[in-house]
Amino acid sequence: MLLDSLIDQATRNGHNTVAVAAADTADVIEAVMDALNKNLAEFILYGNQEKIISLIKMQKQGLLNNHKLKIIHTDSILSAAESAVRAVSNNQANVLMKGNVPSNILLKAVLNKEFGLRTGNVLSHTSVFEIPGFNQFILITDAAMNIAPDLEQKVQILNNSVVLAKSVGIEMPRVAVIAAVETVNSDMQATLDAAALTMMNKRGQITDCIVDGPLGLDNAISELAAKHKGIISKVAGKADILLVPAIEVGNVLYKSLIYFAKAKVGAVVAGASAPIVLTSRADSAESKLYSLALALCCVKK
Amino acid sequence: MLLDSLIDQATRNGHNTVAVAAADTADVIEAVMDALNKNLAEFILYGNQEKIISLIKMQKQGLLNNHKLKIIHTDSILSAAESAVRAVSNNQANVLMKGNVPSNILLKAVLNKEFGLRTGNVLSHTSVFEIPGFNQFILITDAAMNIAPDLEQKVQILNNSVVLAKSVGIEMPRVAVIAAVETVNSDMQATLDAAALTMMNKRGQITDCIVDGPLGLDNAISELAAKHKGIISKVAGKADILLVPAIEVGNVLYKSLIYFAKAKVGAVVAGASAPIVLTSRADSAESKLYSLALALCCVKK
Repeated sequence: MLLDSLIDQATRNGHNTVAVAAADTADVIEAVMDALNKNLAEFILYGNQEKIISLIKMQKQGLLNNHKLKIIHTDSILSAAESAVRAVSNNQANVLMKGNVPSNILLKAVLNKEFGLRTGNVLSHTSVFEIPGFNQFILITDAAMNIAPDLEQKVQILNNSVVLAKSVGIEMPRVAVIAAVETVNSDMQATLDAAALTMMNKRGQITDCIVDGPLGLDNAISELAAKHKGIISKVAGKADILLVPAIEVGNVLYKSLIYFAKAKVGAVVAGASAPIVLTSRADSAESKLYSLALALCCVKK
Repeated sequence: MLLDSLIDQATRNGHNTVAVAAADTADVIEAVMDALNKNLAEFILYGNQEKIISLIKMQKQGLLNNHKLKIIHTDSILSAAESAVRAVSNNQANVLMKGNVPSNILLKAVLNKEFGLRTGNVLSHTSVFEIPGFNQFILITDAAMNIAPDLEQKVQILNNSVVLAKSVGIEMPRVAVIAAVETVNSDMQATLDAAALTMMNKRGQITDCIVDGPLGLDNAISELAAKHKGIISKVAGKADILLVPAIEVGNVLYKSLIYFAKAKVGAVVAGASAPIVLTSRADSAESKLYSLALALCCVKK
């Protein structure tokens, strides 16, 4: 229900165009068809034209004449990736979507100094979860891109997620900096960084959000657990964003929510000049659609 | 249902005695009363005798005359911790339980060279989960004790969890060594250690279990996800034990299972000469009982 609202919001944002790098695979075409049906955006598909056309015919032949769909032939995966990135940097499209191309090849094109989408910021992955029993979004960052971010990288990852939170309607995001414990412990770098980030927020070095940490996951999302530990904070028990200390933490939390808690998710890579959708084959069709809607909600006006 | 079977098993194991360090707090007395009602074990309670007696009177006066309950007065928390540890090393008790004493004080007594419970092994925390939708136990280690274990420590943590898995009826535990990805990546120490542990198992350096890693959480517990990635393994999709690379990973996974997936848990510290129950006030009464039952199942015969 929560994530469905992003589809409505993306539709209302109107007139956006998604450049798809290497669209010549069934699950990507399925996601694009889904999005066209819901009138989410226009699409430029880069890849093997013949294969793309035959995949579309298999699904819904009529869409081949849809004026919101353009197909541009490319000879290789590399060329599909670079052409899609160029479409975004030339303002022909305002969202980049990964198709049948390895993430590292697409990201290399994104970071290309000549035609890429660099802004000087760290690129980071933020996922937006709808969790059974929780009537608000919970955002998690970074579960997929930054392996072991240092403090300065954490600041940028945090900032990227705050911009995204605002795009989905969270005016003043509450950011919990997650560690294994809620006390500062010099043997645990996660707790030291959390304390630093909290103070940077208090000193006005990190703005547009309320940061508190270190917090255990329980203290971050359960008011009762926070109360048990005597934690008084504007974030504890009601965090919107969970900033995790390392990729393994975010990745395990992300997958635990999907596989154990039956949560739904959309995710986007932020920090480039346009939002990037990096779905993988293993993602459900629903999750791909949510990610696309999320990216469209993040387009700068 | 799964965890309830541990209570039956612990009862059948019979004639065990639990030494409780600093029992003079309501939630610990409640757990002890619960366990006595279920005939789990006998108890020696160390702490302020007057307070313990008045707490028991408040709950169930009749139990004061229960021959399975002994109360021994101690003057301080330190003395309660040391006395309970001594009771175990003197074979008066075979399980140690933390009461109203900070973990570090209890563990210091456990590690005391003169009267402690050292075996030369790493002490590690293993939790046994019953997760809605999963009809088998899933064990997680280490979510609470070892901050950033190196390879040698991971071997010992793994071995401790294998012994525990056998105690709860898993004859040949399948151990997934968890990382963010299922490929070996020199930038991710978790994947290198996972590869090393897998090969140590193949070479007979780690026995009594089947180890595979690196695996993402999805590949470890979902056969479909493993198949999607083309992973062929005796562990992938059906892991019994999840060995995580660092405390933050285990801690977040543990709490995610409790708070998001509504899982039930019991946990124990293994690696000392007797199992140790380290519950905290925030644990539910049910979880304390499961932890106690789990510890009793681990008692060496």
